[in-house]
Amino acid sequence: MQLLDLLIGRPLASEEDSEQRVGVAAGVPTFGLDALGSAAYGPEAAMTLLIPAAAAGVAYIAPISLVIIALLTIVYFSYRQTIDAYPNGGGSYTVASENLGRGMGLLAAAALMLDYLLDVGVGISTGVGALVSAVPRLQPHTLGICLAILLVLTLMNLRGVRESGVLVMLPTYLFCICLLGVLGWGTAKAAMAGGHPRPVVAPPHVAGHALAAVGAWLLIRAFASGCTALTGVEAVSNGMSAFREPKSQTAKRTLTVIVALLAIFLAGIAHLTRAYGIVATEPGTPQYESLLAMITAAVAGKGAFYYTTIASILVLLSLSANTAFTGFPLLCRVIAEDGYLPRFFAIRGRRLVYMEGILVLAVLSALILVAFGGVTDRLIPLFAIGAFLAFTLSQAGMVMHWRRTGGQRSRLYMGINGLGALATGCTVVVVLLAKFIEGAWITVLLVPILIALMYGVHRYYTRAARLMRVDRLHLRKPEVPLAVVPVSNWNRASQEALQFACGMTTRVEVLHVECPDEHGEQTSSNWQGQLDEAARAAGLQPPRVVSVPSPFRFITSPIVRYVLDAEKRESGGKVMVVVPEMVAKRWWQYLLHNHRSTTLKALLLLQGNRRIVVVNVPWYLR
Amino acid sequence: MQLLDLLIGRPLASEEDSEQRVGVAAGVPTFGLDALGSAAYGPEAAMTLLIPAAAAGVAYIAPISLVIIALLTIVYFSYRQTIDAYPNGGGSYTVASENLGRGMGLLAAAALMLDYLLDVGVGISTGVGALVSAVPRLQPHTLGICLAILLVLTLMNLRGVRESGVLVMLPTYLFCICLLGVLGWGTAKAAMAGGHPRPVVAPPHVAGHALAAVGAWLLIRAFASGCTALTGVEAVSNGMSAFREPKSQTAKRTLTVIVALLAIFLAGIAHLTRAYGIVATEPGTPQYESLLAMITAAVAGKGAFYYTTIASILVLLSLSANTAFTGFPLLCRVIAEDGYLPRFFAIRGRRLVYMEGILVLAVLSALILVAFGGVTDRLIPLFAIGAFLAFTLSQAGMVMHWRRTGGQRSRLYMGINGLGALATGCTVVVVLLAKFIEGAWITVLLVPILIALMYGVHRYYTRAARLMRVDRLHLRKPEVPLAVVPVSNWNRASQEALQFACGMTTRVEVLHVECPDEHGEQTSSNWQGQLDEAARAAGLQPPRVVSVPSPFRFITSPIVRYVLDAEKRESGGKVMVVVPEMVAKRWWQYLLHNHRSTTLKALLLLQGNRRIVVVNVPWYLR
Repeated sequence: MQLLDLLIGRPLASEEDSEQRVGVAAGVPTFGLDALGSAAYGPEAAMTLLIPAAAAGVAYIAPISLVIIALLTIVYFSYRQTIDAYPNGGGSYTVASENLGRGMGLLAAAALMLDYLLDVGVGISTGVGALVSAVPRLQPHTLGICLAILLVLTLMNLRGVRESGVLVMLPTYLFCICLLGVLGWGTAKAAMAGGHPRPVVAPPHVAGHALAAVGAWLLIRAFASGCTALTGVEAVSNGMSAFREPKSQTAKRTLTVIVALLAIFLAGIAHLTRAYGIVATEPGTPQYESLLAMITAAVAGKGAFYYTTIASILVLLSLSANTAFTGFPLLCRVIAEDGYLPRFFAIRGRRLVYMEGILVLAVLSALILVAFGGVTDRLIPLFAIGAFLAFTLSQAGMVMHWRRTGGQRSRLYMGINGLGALATGCTVVVVLLAKFIEGAWITVLLVPILIALMYGVHRYYTRAARLMRVDRLHLRKPEVPLAVVPVSNWNRASQEALQFACGMTTRVEVLHVECPDEHGEQTSSNWQGQLDEAARAAGLQPPRVVSVPSPFRFITSPIVRYVLDAEKRESGGKVMVVVPEMVAKRWWQYLLHNHRSTTLKALLLLQGNRRIVVVNVPWYLR
Repeated sequence: MQLLDLLIGRPLASEEDSEQRVGVAAGVPTFGLDALGSAAYGPEAAMTLLIPAAAAGVAYIAPISLVIIALLTIVYFSYRQTIDAYPNGGGSYTVASENLGRGMGLLAAAALMLDYLLDVGVGISTGVGALVSAVPRLQPHTLGICLAILLVLTLMNLRGVRESGVLVMLPTYLFCICLLGVLGWGTAKAAMAGGHPRPVVAPPHVAGHALAAVGAWLLIRAFASGCTALTGVEAVSNGMSAFREPKSQTAKRTLTVIVALLAIFLAGIAHLTRAYGIVATEPGTPQYESLLAMITAAVAGKGAFYYTTIASILVLLSLSANTAFTGFPLLCRVIAEDGYLPRFFAIRGRRLVYMEGILVLAVLSALILVAFGGVTDRLIPLFAIGAFLAFTLSQAGMVMHWRRTGGQRSRLYMGINGLGALATGCTVVVVLLAKFIEGAWITVLLVPILIALMYGVHRYYTRAARLMRVDRLHLRKPEVPLAVVPVSNWNRASQEALQFACGMTTRVEVLHVECPDEHGEQTSSNWQGQLDEAARAAGLQPPRVVSVPSPFRFITSPIVRYVLDAEKRESGGKVMVVVPEMVAKRWWQYLLHNHRSTTLKALLLLQGNRRIVVVNVPWYLR
């Protein structure tokens, strides 16, 4: 327990909850990290697809970015409305469940859960990938670094929402300041140079045939890839319970800051890419440089500022998984409270966070990282579908919400959310089509499996609750139980167990398993006399000695068999099996004793029935 | 259980014991494998040290072999006498314990245990080493092959003495026939050629400066290395309990066959080495060939017979660990029956073998193999000291035995055993001095540690037996216990637990831990009324509701604390903690329930005392 205190901090009382809430300043890094970080890979993902078009492709970055920013704006207004309507946490799951039915809610939930999971694996490995391409000496340690970052993120999140916010605050703001600096400086230079600034460090010139014309399919695929820039925007509305009062106000302000920054980033990147005529480089080739690195070098040269910016991007990407660590446990908790996920997801741990959710996410992401050796490029196509599916269902749910609640401005609200649903819905279809073969089919396969699992969990809980329900407490007149005391030889533990059994009931059987050939085994032939005498002296009913042979030298299974038979012979009462157990002081002492009582208890519990009760009488060797 | 049946066979009844006994034909491979296999490395180990002397060294192989064969003869007669005197298993441990005192017995035991352990690791890796030098493609799989052989040996030995004997019978006899063939044919050729036969395939000619003179120290070291040929001879007298009646006769005949074969091998190898002028090659160099391979090639050429012989040697070496698998569990069993090793070593498993000893040996050898990556060359110097120390103590014990028992021929017997003790004792000193720096010091370090551990085990058992002993069964008039039923909310399991508690005692407390903020937690404010009513209807004393707050949302620790306090308040009676437990049908259902009752039971057992009794009332969800 002391190690736990050191690692994740002292337990927090339930009433310390409000001190753990976050405001705007801490909310932006906590819930916006993922969204802001996506500025570092969204535009680049789009432009990578335009590489075949070379310089001709540059012309298309502006329209694609504009469409994405428009989509972002629609999503922003939609989510503001969701926050107002669901001040206690309006994740896509809640909104869709309440307005479109449970099935749609679970669809949104499954999509989001997969997305969060991918977010951790892909986020960490992208950051570490950038790091090892900058410092190739670290290449062999890719997986190790990934897992170390995962461990740090897990521990910080187990310490609580506030503490993980503090961890990511500095890198997030450093990233924002650097990027705003690059974009502002670059835009000013471009304006002064009449739109055609001279780069300080020219971007690498990529040779190759330029495509004559850029096809519509290529543009659609570039757009679909660019849409990854929008992932993470839903985090604020999911995490409502973590915001300081007034919740809706704090959350909306946080969302505004995040979306505004993201829009500025996307616009600025698109502008400077065109102004400097930057073409993306093929990842995995030696001349590869990230888009942001090329822009920064073009604007500011490769000085101290360049390296600070690049470093802040690396750190931010590695930490962008933090958003998933905040969102996933909260999402699982809401689903668990509705009975569609195991209940342990709904238990708040010692630091008031939903520890089990954090641990499950950590373990699953660790498995993904290990399975892919820390290089998760192939998982990127799976990304973003979940997020957009959740967006769509959430917006569609909001449309139904306004329709139901009615009110003065409900038509306007319906319009906004409807537009959002339409836009994001179309995006889902586009992304799915564009990336189906590359891997999006895995999402299409996994989501229904997850949903089926969640329905299964709910069915099980409903059935268990029905079987376990007690409408009105009812007690019966008790019957005299039969007590069976398994004894291999007489010592203080077995005497104590017999004493207890004699105090509980008048019908006690001392059960002895005979393996006469074996070393150290007693025979029970003279026990009855001793028992009669001891019971008479105490004024008790004498116990009966029962001996069962065991030709195969098994000890526990004959006892279990005897108890099951005795239960069948008993008419109505319980069969109490009184198990003597020696408890040693130190762990190594357990190596020196047999563990028959532990095995016996476990077997009786598993093979028994509800008329068989196990009583454990301990004897302490101290 | 069915998997176990398949892997190691159906359980054997205790009276099937005699069918598992072995005669001479099965006894030679079972107990002689190690001794016979040592013909393949003992002479070579001696000759490797003589490499610096080149051809001059060949002259010394005959005298060294003669000394070793003489030693073998003395040891043979000594052990024949031991078998007669201790027909129920006269391992060095028993003989030394009974005649020289427990300390000497444990010294012999510790030395032998280490030797057995090394035997498995070194045996398997020597065989596999020879295999991969023959088939270099297997080199990367060295460790895997080692572990696979270890697994097969472990499983076969778990199946019982007979079955492991069958496994090794064929390779052992094939090896003997091949080697006898080579030696007989070679000797005939040499005789016909007047002592200087022409090799069919000439042994590799090793260049290098020959030493002018061979020093005494070199000869002593060569002798010390050659002594490894004697390891394994003690196996027969250790394993007396496995022989068919009349035990002593069967065992002595088995020992005679083993020793005779070994002596023939040693003499034959020495003779042909000199006749063909074969010089050992440096292991680990490309021109390395084993001594037996060179002899076989010289006698028979590299045809089918050559490859059969080589293959039989490889298989025999890999399986030579089997002797340790037979000896180690029997040795541990005898020590455990005297209380110097954990008692589980003395329990005969389903196949009538001492499974725990086999498993411990398998795990420890696996660790050694993994630690050394399957190449255990560096462990070879540790070898043989243990065996010779055990020989010496056993012979010395026999001297004391004859002195004590007296009788007509006791002086002759004393003389034989005394000669054995002297010869093997001198060998111990020589081997220890010759190999101390190379690694024998590890044995010197480990043996006292092992002895101290065994004394510690015995001290613990003696103390535990004293604390637990009951001279005469005694029962008291029982007091009315207090029953505590922890209930988080009312369902069939908790109702059943309450019902049981009410049947056992009139003083029942229903304990509820309040975490009011948490999802799904009930408050106990209205429970007392319901309980009063239900108890009145059944004519029972109404239970009392006790509520404890838990600001940190812990559930089990407040219950444990309450029970410990209640025990302090109670004057003399027991405190029964009645734990309701839901038992699910399938393992995955456990993921969907909390495990508080399991945690609670474990904590109460560990932190409780002997006045706290845990009663487990199960409820089956079926």
